[in-house]
Amino acid sequence: MADIRVQLATNKKEKPAADQLGFGKVFTDHMLVIDYTAGEGWHDARIIPYQPITLDPSAMIFHYAQTVFEGLKAYQTADGEVLLFRADRNFKRLNKSNERICIPQIDEDFALEALKKLVDIDREWIPNAPGTSLYIRPFIIATEPSLGVHPSRTYQFIVIMSPVGSYYAGGIKPVKIMVEQQYVRAVVGGTGEAKTGGNYASSLKGQAIAEEQGYAQTLWLDGKENKYVEEVGSMNIFFKIAGQIVTPALNGSILAGITRDSMLQVLKSKNIPVEERRISIDEIVEAAKNGTLEEVFGTGTAAVISPVGELKWQGEKIVINNGEIGEVAQMLYDTLTGIQSGKLEDTFGWTIRV
Amino acid sequence: MADIRVQLATNKKEKPAADQLGFGKVFTDHMLVIDYTAGEGWHDARIIPYQPITLDPSAMIFHYAQTVFEGLKAYQTADGEVLLFRADRNFKRLNKSNERICIPQIDEDFALEALKKLVDIDREWIPNAPGTSLYIRPFIIATEPSLGVHPSRTYQFIVIMSPVGSYYAGGIKPVKIMVEQQYVRAVVGGTGEAKTGGNYASSLKGQAIAEEQGYAQTLWLDGKENKYVEEVGSMNIFFKIAGQIVTPALNGSILAGITRDSMLQVLKSKNIPVEERRISIDEIVEAAKNGTLEEVFGTGTAAVISPVGELKWQGEKIVINNGEIGEVAQMLYDTLTGIQSGKLEDTFGWTIRV
Repeated sequence: MADIRVQLATNKKEKPAADQLGFGKVFTDHMLVIDYTAGEGWHDARIIPYQPITLDPSAMIFHYAQTVFEGLKAYQTADGEVLLFRADRNFKRLNKSNERICIPQIDEDFALEALKKLVDIDREWIPNAPGTSLYIRPFIIATEPSLGVHPSRTYQFIVIMSPVGSYYAGGIKPVKIMVEQQYVRAVVGGTGEAKTGGNYASSLKGQAIAEEQGYAQTLWLDGKENKYVEEVGSMNIFFKIAGQIVTPALNGSILAGITRDSMLQVLKSKNIPVEERRISIDEIVEAAKNGTLEEVFGTGTAAVISPVGELKWQGEKIVINNGEIGEVAQMLYDTLTGIQSGKLEDTFGWTIRV
Repeated sequence: MADIRVQLATNKKEKPAADQLGFGKVFTDHMLVIDYTAGEGWHDARIIPYQPITLDPSAMIFHYAQTVFEGLKAYQTADGEVLLFRADRNFKRLNKSNERICIPQIDEDFALEALKKLVDIDREWIPNAPGTSLYIRPFIIATEPSLGVHPSRTYQFIVIMSPVGSYYAGGIKPVKIMVEQQYVRAVVGGTGEAKTGGNYASSLKGQAIAEEQGYAQTLWLDGKENKYVEEVGSMNIFFKIAGQIVTPALNGSILAGITRDSMLQVLKSKNIPVEERRISIDEIVEAAKNGTLEEVFGTGTAAVISPVGELKWQGEKIVINNGEIGEVAQMLYDTLTGIQSGKLEDTFGWTIRV
């Protein structure tokens, strides 16, 4: 695959005001599209005006959900530079998801170059108010018009981008989380480790139940024993118990979050010990009871850090750190957003200049 | 929702020859579409010329696989009548899947009436050679253009139809099946009981591994203990052990097959005892060893019956009934296809005249 064809939009859309940005509702003027055809591989990379996708109603994405996606952000620094955060890791993980869902591997280096070109073309879409960013959504869909259950012979790799508002416009507020007892997000041997649509469709029900009861998100337990903590909503989760930071070890059913990995590296760089291991919900309840559950927080691209102020488990309500953000969560948030926005020196080599 | 608007195709497509029919590759002249909008419900039911679907690239189906589907068939009888097989059950199950995937309920009666109208309009597409039929694919996709993870606020319910060839053009041939040890299709608490795309995306990898080793399909074990038999490929599974028919009980992670249910009823009507219970792979291996494993067969809409001639488990190959179809499988196949095609009297009230 050699070149990227560029067709610029002739009519540019109006950009929303900084205080009108939501999440993933408004999209930039352009999108990246690369086609795949069996026997030919990925071909015809192009940046084109943002436009609808037209597919046969028998296209496999509509029936068998053969799809993977990624989520990452571009930030505008105070001096107007544009930074991507660990985008190489996103394409690496996309290929891992591809492997599980039987989608052909992409060329990670080419995808990164193409993404940089796309971001550059739409760079005036990147908001610069504190906490705002450009959310980037690469995804692959199976497009073969065929109802047979087999891997598709054609795909489209697409990248769309959306300016997003500050997750914490009114300051960081800890959320209330319900531990889900009935529904399961993923099980070892399933697709939990892949970033694929089915995991999210599966999660909607637990999320709806949590919301009905006034909780913001679901804390998912493992699918085998319904006992070990896995993820919170679509984030990874960390606990601070008696001064020790712990997070569930990647066991095959947990998404290997890039923010999770970044947090682990930040903690290690600051000589704060952190353990990746199996954590049962009983251990959390016990720690809450004996007063050693000091912090709970989720990590993910959208929010960076989402502190948990309350956990509901079997009718019991566990309040954490008096419903306030903890020291470690605050430090991690400040460090990561500092690096992402170019305010702090990036000693990890995570940022990629566009 | 009152009427169904009908817009007939002005250019009719050429119909494939009876011996050129595959599965789900050629589609009829028309499709049914019904829209859903939050606050308004399902509306604007229409039968229109078969045509592409056009969606925003941020439509939720492309990202979070919020989708459900069904599969059923229409048959042409010897005297030219058209029969649907238990279509009411398909729409009932579609609503059960909707419930799990947070898609609004459809009006089952209206859907059946609309389907009958669609089949009637395209009735000349129903092939009449032995074993052929019109495969019908109702599906619902989430269409809201938004990247937030929440149930979509808009959907399309679509029905497309494809004339399909005989599954057993060269006679019923038992297939070789590999028991999957590493990958899992579904787990209790997950989406295994729903007919949703993610289950099929998840199954592709096991299927690919089976095919690499020369096997036609995967036999899936349960996700909790990797021990109990659940489904074979995308079919339910039955065993005959020492004269007794058994099939895995519906436990929440197994699809409640309509063919499965029909087989149970046929068996009961013939006073052939059948048990629905948990069946471990060890029990199957043991039965094979002591010579009491008499038959194994899958049941589903596409093939009706798919006899299993060989099972591979942990390097061992178990040959069943000398690699030939068994008596019970043959009887069930003859009975069900007889009723479906109008050759046998339908004492169950399963067929629906169009």
